[in-house]
Amino acid sequence: MANEEKFVAEIVDQEDNFSKWYNQVVRKAELADYAPVRGCMIIRPYGYAIWENIQRLLDARFKETDVVNAYFPLLIPRSFLEREAEHIEGFAPEVAWVTRGGGEELEEPLAIRPTSETIIGHTYAKWVQSYRDLPILINQWNNVMRWEKRTTLFLRTSEFLWQEGHTAHRTLEEAEERTRMMLEVYRSFAEEDAAIPVIVGRKSENEKFAGALRTYSIEALMGDGKALQAGTSHNLGNNFAKSFDIQFLDDDGQRKYCATTSWGLSTRMIGGVIMVHGDKSGLILPPRLAPYQVVIVPIWRKDAEKTAVSAMVERVTKMLKGRVRVKVDNSDNTPGWKYNEWEMRGVPVRLEIGPRDVQNESVMLVRRDNRAKESVSLAALETRLPELLEEIQQALFLRAREFRDKSMRYTESYEEFKRIIADERGFVRVKWAEDSAAELAIKEETKATLRVIPFDQPEGGVQGKCFYTGKPATCEAIFARAY
Amino acid sequence: MANEEKFVAEIVDQEDNFSKWYNQVVRKAELADYAPVRGCMIIRPYGYAIWENIQRLLDARFKETDVVNAYFPLLIPRSFLEREAEHIEGFAPEVAWVTRGGGEELEEPLAIRPTSETIIGHTYAKWVQSYRDLPILINQWNNVMRWEKRTTLFLRTSEFLWQEGHTAHRTLEEAEERTRMMLEVYRSFAEEDAAIPVIVGRKSENEKFAGALRTYSIEALMGDGKALQAGTSHNLGNNFAKSFDIQFLDDDGQRKYCATTSWGLSTRMIGGVIMVHGDKSGLILPPRLAPYQVVIVPIWRKDAEKTAVSAMVERVTKMLKGRVRVKVDNSDNTPGWKYNEWEMRGVPVRLEIGPRDVQNESVMLVRRDNRAKESVSLAALETRLPELLEEIQQALFLRAREFRDKSMRYTESYEEFKRIIADERGFVRVKWAEDSAAELAIKEETKATLRVIPFDQPEGGVQGKCFYTGKPATCEAIFARAY
Repeated sequence: MANEEKFVAEIVDQEDNFSKWYNQVVRKAELADYAPVRGCMIIRPYGYAIWENIQRLLDARFKETDVVNAYFPLLIPRSFLEREAEHIEGFAPEVAWVTRGGGEELEEPLAIRPTSETIIGHTYAKWVQSYRDLPILINQWNNVMRWEKRTTLFLRTSEFLWQEGHTAHRTLEEAEERTRMMLEVYRSFAEEDAAIPVIVGRKSENEKFAGALRTYSIEALMGDGKALQAGTSHNLGNNFAKSFDIQFLDDDGQRKYCATTSWGLSTRMIGGVIMVHGDKSGLILPPRLAPYQVVIVPIWRKDAEKTAVSAMVERVTKMLKGRVRVKVDNSDNTPGWKYNEWEMRGVPVRLEIGPRDVQNESVMLVRRDNRAKESVSLAALETRLPELLEEIQQALFLRAREFRDKSMRYTESYEEFKRIIADERGFVRVKWAEDSAAELAIKEETKATLRVIPFDQPEGGVQGKCFYTGKPATCEAIFARAY
Repeated sequence: MANEEKFVAEIVDQEDNFSKWYNQVVRKAELADYAPVRGCMIIRPYGYAIWENIQRLLDARFKETDVVNAYFPLLIPRSFLEREAEHIEGFAPEVAWVTRGGGEELEEPLAIRPTSETIIGHTYAKWVQSYRDLPILINQWNNVMRWEKRTTLFLRTSEFLWQEGHTAHRTLEEAEERTRMMLEVYRSFAEEDAAIPVIVGRKSENEKFAGALRTYSIEALMGDGKALQAGTSHNLGNNFAKSFDIQFLDDDGQRKYCATTSWGLSTRMIGGVIMVHGDKSGLILPPRLAPYQVVIVPIWRKDAEKTAVSAMVERVTKMLKGRVRVKVDNSDNTPGWKYNEWEMRGVPVRLEIGPRDVQNESVMLVRRDNRAKESVSLAALETRLPELLEEIQQALFLRAREFRDKSMRYTESYEEFKRIIADERGFVRVKWAEDSAAELAIKEETKATLRVIPFDQPEGGVQGKCFYTGKPATCEAIFARAY
């Protein structure tokens, strides 16, 4: 047992130091490493396999809404970034610049894309002539770079992977509809695939995307009570269309500006999965995103037992192939070590096969989330295992939602607000007059930011006064400290 | 017919001007566009969908050999590139440098990766401690940048997409085995999925990868008789392990250097597909890589016919869903226009449904490659269509192989060699003494390069003299002019 205790002992308790726990889990589970280039990360195979599952599931959801993939260049001329005034103001401080190429100084510095609205806007202007060319519904999976001073693996790094969708439409209404549609795609992905409950709504003017008309987001609550913006969808109105001259000839013979949207979700989501589901033993991965859904641990003491156990392991592996993602741990480590390692790495189900299981033609299934055990006959395994994985997927979502709901407070008092933010964290819901100066003051005083003005508002409108300014409230808003 | 003729007339004949034909097809089929950044490309949805199929099929082949994916940073410190002497010499002239980030000049310029051996070597040195950590079998799908003066879409652009695999092994033998294994993966992918016959073999010392012990490649022949290197696999020996100190403790208690490999295949393959299979009407896509395998064209004259035809189109679409990739062209264009457009875009099979087909409960299938037509009953369609696609896949491969074999010449005379290279192109096979100076002279005089020393050599070794130097030949080699 010494080994096993040592193994777990190396992870600090979540409650003692959440951010240290986070970093240890990321490193020990071999999800990611810091790169030799400051602020950049190496996504290791186990972490990247989670990203591959995210890509596969999200991409399928995009394609169901008629979105297609493409690829636009990494480098963006400086003059492009400067064309939309708010956009360059928002991104300029974070840009990495290429100034030399092929042995020569470049005439114009090229930005490594922090996001691609500008180069895509320029391109759409060429592609769009008539209303018949609309809508354009394109996404790309790529890397982007935003120079960061303080970094945390997955949550904030100078380079990260994401998808960025960019659409162009005939009318503002259609763009608004698409913006909301993609937000709903993110919501359903987060809740159904990542088992992360989210609040959907609109960002404040302060927090919206640089150059957008309106930004919507999905907001999740992490295990330490801090919020994480997990995906955003922007209605860009005509702003970028005007800056990049994306015009079309409508069927009434008039030339009009397109309305455009953009929306993104990044490797940050992996950080969210870790912080929502993990516990003191390490990661807990939702089955739909887990690289391995099941780890098979063979157990024997005497060599004589090994043959029969190995044969059964092979039989089970073959049976499950193509149905669930299986890892067989045939390493020299002890079973106890393996239990701890795969628990730490968050595999949803451990499948134990020992001499007694061989005799009984059964296997032992152990859930990662609640450690519940069940013995399942070999005959029933093929149907029981996928069912169990689905039960775990649901249980993780419900547990996270219960935590989130419990951490949702409502107050009309700024004093209480400050106390909650300082002592308890979580989301705080308040009546709000949409005053940008007040929002900045609250941030300054409490470090809490306005996460989202939820779609879910009181029927018949909000009555009463803003909790901070005392002005007539126009909505309810949710604040939190955030990553 | 006027429209249709105009449409086709806009593509020049392959035989008149192959490179113009190539560029027109790439642009008209909406595969790719030049970007506003010099030398970079925009891969449009139709072109990117081919790349997605390449990724899916190749990735599955990698995973069958136990390779996993990961992600390493875009930016590489200059000092890393400089650590392997041949490597920096080979790549330095092509590098794009980041010199500013976050508003500050960087202390050390960062290269946008032209390839990732160096940063991965640095990382492996940290990951590898003992022989138990080996082998490491990692691949990444990413973008790389090599500053190019003269560019052609897909074939040579400053930024391109590819995969680069990087493995580390205990012994040189194991590294050699992996290098050859991945070459075989490329060969089978090229021949089975892209329907492109390739010659497999070793590169000459002049042509090998900067820093490699040995480079192997698959070489394909394009429709104009020029060669294309379509994938390379490098045995790096201990070179990078020594430069980056990738050492492990072996089971004999000795510290040893790893042997490493790398291997890559890029969006260049899309250029190969276009140039191997295309004809005067445009693209011909092999079914396994085609974004749409079948395009359904509804045909009616009177509105009364439209309802019945549309109902049947819907029925057929539903029947084929999930079995083949189907596009329904419901645009306002005439059937003739649609025929030409989808032929130009290379869809393997056109499926026509007109009033007579509705009456007969049948559809008309038209092959893109040879225009052969067959009427198939609705009852037989589900089984016939996948079968037909497989027939087309095979036919394309056989046609390309026949062309390639016909274009393979053998000579012992340099005079004849020069004449063939100048007048006929194609591959020229010769007896060869592996003399680097002679190789450079031949390139200077004829623009032909040594493409590959094929694995397929005469049994019992090569007899006779080198066709150029007259020295005793050590092998047979294949020369060609190349992209």
